[in-house]
Amino acid sequence: MSRKKVIAVSGGVGGAKLSQGLAAEMDASDLTVIINTGDDSWHYGLFVTPDIDTQLYTLSGRADLDRGWGRSGETWNAMNALRELGEDVWFNLGDKDLGLNLLRTARLARGDRLTDITRDFARAFGIASTLLPMCDQPVSTQLRCTDGDYDFHDWFVAHKTKPEVRDVRFRGAETAEMSGEVRAALFDPDLAAVIICPSNPYLSIAPVLAVPGLQQALIDCPAPVVGVTPVVGGAAIKGPTAEMMRGFDVPVTATSAAELHADIFDGYIIDERDSDQLPDFTRRLPDLAVTTADTMMVDLPAKRRLARAALDFADELARR
Amino acid sequence: MSRKKVIAVSGGVGGAKLSQGLAAEMDASDLTVIINTGDDSWHYGLFVTPDIDTQLYTLSGRADLDRGWGRSGETWNAMNALRELGEDVWFNLGDKDLGLNLLRTARLARGDRLTDITRDFARAFGIASTLLPMCDQPVSTQLRCTDGDYDFHDWFVAHKTKPEVRDVRFRGAETAEMSGEVRAALFDPDLAAVIICPSNPYLSIAPVLAVPGLQQALIDCPAPVVGVTPVVGGAAIKGPTAEMMRGFDVPVTATSAAELHADIFDGYIIDERDSDQLPDFTRRLPDLAVTTADTMMVDLPAKRRLARAALDFADELARR
Repeated sequence: MSRKKVIAVSGGVGGAKLSQGLAAEMDASDLTVIINTGDDSWHYGLFVTPDIDTQLYTLSGRADLDRGWGRSGETWNAMNALRELGEDVWFNLGDKDLGLNLLRTARLARGDRLTDITRDFARAFGIASTLLPMCDQPVSTQLRCTDGDYDFHDWFVAHKTKPEVRDVRFRGAETAEMSGEVRAALFDPDLAAVIICPSNPYLSIAPVLAVPGLQQALIDCPAPVVGVTPVVGGAAIKGPTAEMMRGFDVPVTATSAAELHADIFDGYIIDERDSDQLPDFTRRLPDLAVTTADTMMVDLPAKRRLARAALDFADELARR
Repeated sequence: MSRKKVIAVSGGVGGAKLSQGLAAEMDASDLTVIINTGDDSWHYGLFVTPDIDTQLYTLSGRADLDRGWGRSGETWNAMNALRELGEDVWFNLGDKDLGLNLLRTARLARGDRLTDITRDFARAFGIASTLLPMCDQPVSTQLRCTDGDYDFHDWFVAHKTKPEVRDVRFRGAETAEMSGEVRAALFDPDLAAVIICPSNPYLSIAPVLAVPGLQQALIDCPAPVVGVTPVVGGAAIKGPTAEMMRGFDVPVTATSAAELHADIFDGYIIDERDSDQLPDFTRRLPDLAVTTADTMMVDLPAKRRLARAALDFADELARR
């Protein structure tokens, strides 16, 4: 590629894995990750932004890969002290994680932008890539379920994704604004590719696209926009994507996942196990270029292989 | 004693030791500790009230007796995470301590009184005695030093008590109010004794007395008010009492310490090592009853012996 900048649009764990692969397969300083902040919420006066933290911890080698979330070598003494005081703590924040969240909350309180705070944290952690929150205004993912309305974490953590979702709304998104940094990344003439990570299409990708102008920027983007399926073999790798698709009467297939945001994609990567989906794509999304790869990302080599496949696919699409 | 309620007026570590001795030597539920809150301050958005916490941890057996402050089995991962992010953290909050402070701050933010929060924490920790903040309004100890003005913790922790103190002020004290609970304790007809703990007279006892009406209530109190010296053998057991006395050109003796708040005391306990001070007391404070005891409180039996001595002395004063 002559152009060399790459954007990854990402939610939490799955997106962080692919971001890590991308950062390893390219000059990491050319990678910008635009991160969902719809999951952000307040707990005991702390502003918690899980998808940014997952990226910070994963890209700096601080993530607990066994547990699948949070930091390695984490302890839980603060939350246990709350329980000792009779609190029903359903949102588990590790002690190290708490330290980071204390500082972020204190900086937000004195008027710093989430974008600047995230940049400083990434630098302090030695991350060469640029991590950008999707916007600096609060956006809150709200789930309308068959039995009532839920904040994201109330539904996700406290209710274990059990209530069936009828509608998803992003409170605050209509008045949010692309930051100068997100705009500059999207309109960078050196932009070679946009990778939409295998994150939940309803809860991780949709809130990013809900920031005014962002979806249109991806549609208009001269660089190829490549999606990676969050659905493999009729299931989601992680999280409630499959249950939500079923709840919306959407078949749990890569084709249907691609259809959810088909307008932004120039290319789409499905798992090699799902190559029987290819005729479906040809029939239902005839303008979308599709290829197969191993999307499971079980270890760093696998993350790098998927990242390489996405970069090569974008390169090929750019040359078409 | 026929009357059985006892009040202890206390700062941090020394006062907590004597409170623990009192709680063991009497029916703990008859003990009320009125605690200095002039050291309270904000760190990373958390409201930290060290003297209350020292009492909570000491009276519930959670204090780290070796370190002399904070909780036993404490970890420091949150503060270390802040340091990793480049913060110059000079105020060390353990992870368990942080959990308690998170909850207190969140409850204050929703309008709960410090008095109610402290009561709930004490109950959750199984403390039978009543712990009362000196008031529910913020009072902040300010030190005017030869080289400028300091907040208490800035002077105490960050500057290690080095700047020489010229004046101490309690910002907010003039508009503070005795809570209903403090008032009820002070005017309880069943009150048998008030023990002024061996805490720093300038930084721990003076702020309590600065709450409007509180000093007068102690002066008028029908129950004996017994002070315990914070000075032994020309030095303070702990903390900057001696340096401050020298800075104010006050001799570092038990007699001078007693003179600082002589108007409230009916009796005063000096250390048995300082019995050569007795003629000084007779000369300078002829109306004050004085006795000697071992005031060092090196272990629980020693705390109990001093508590017993104070209770017996008050009993004797009441019968005079």
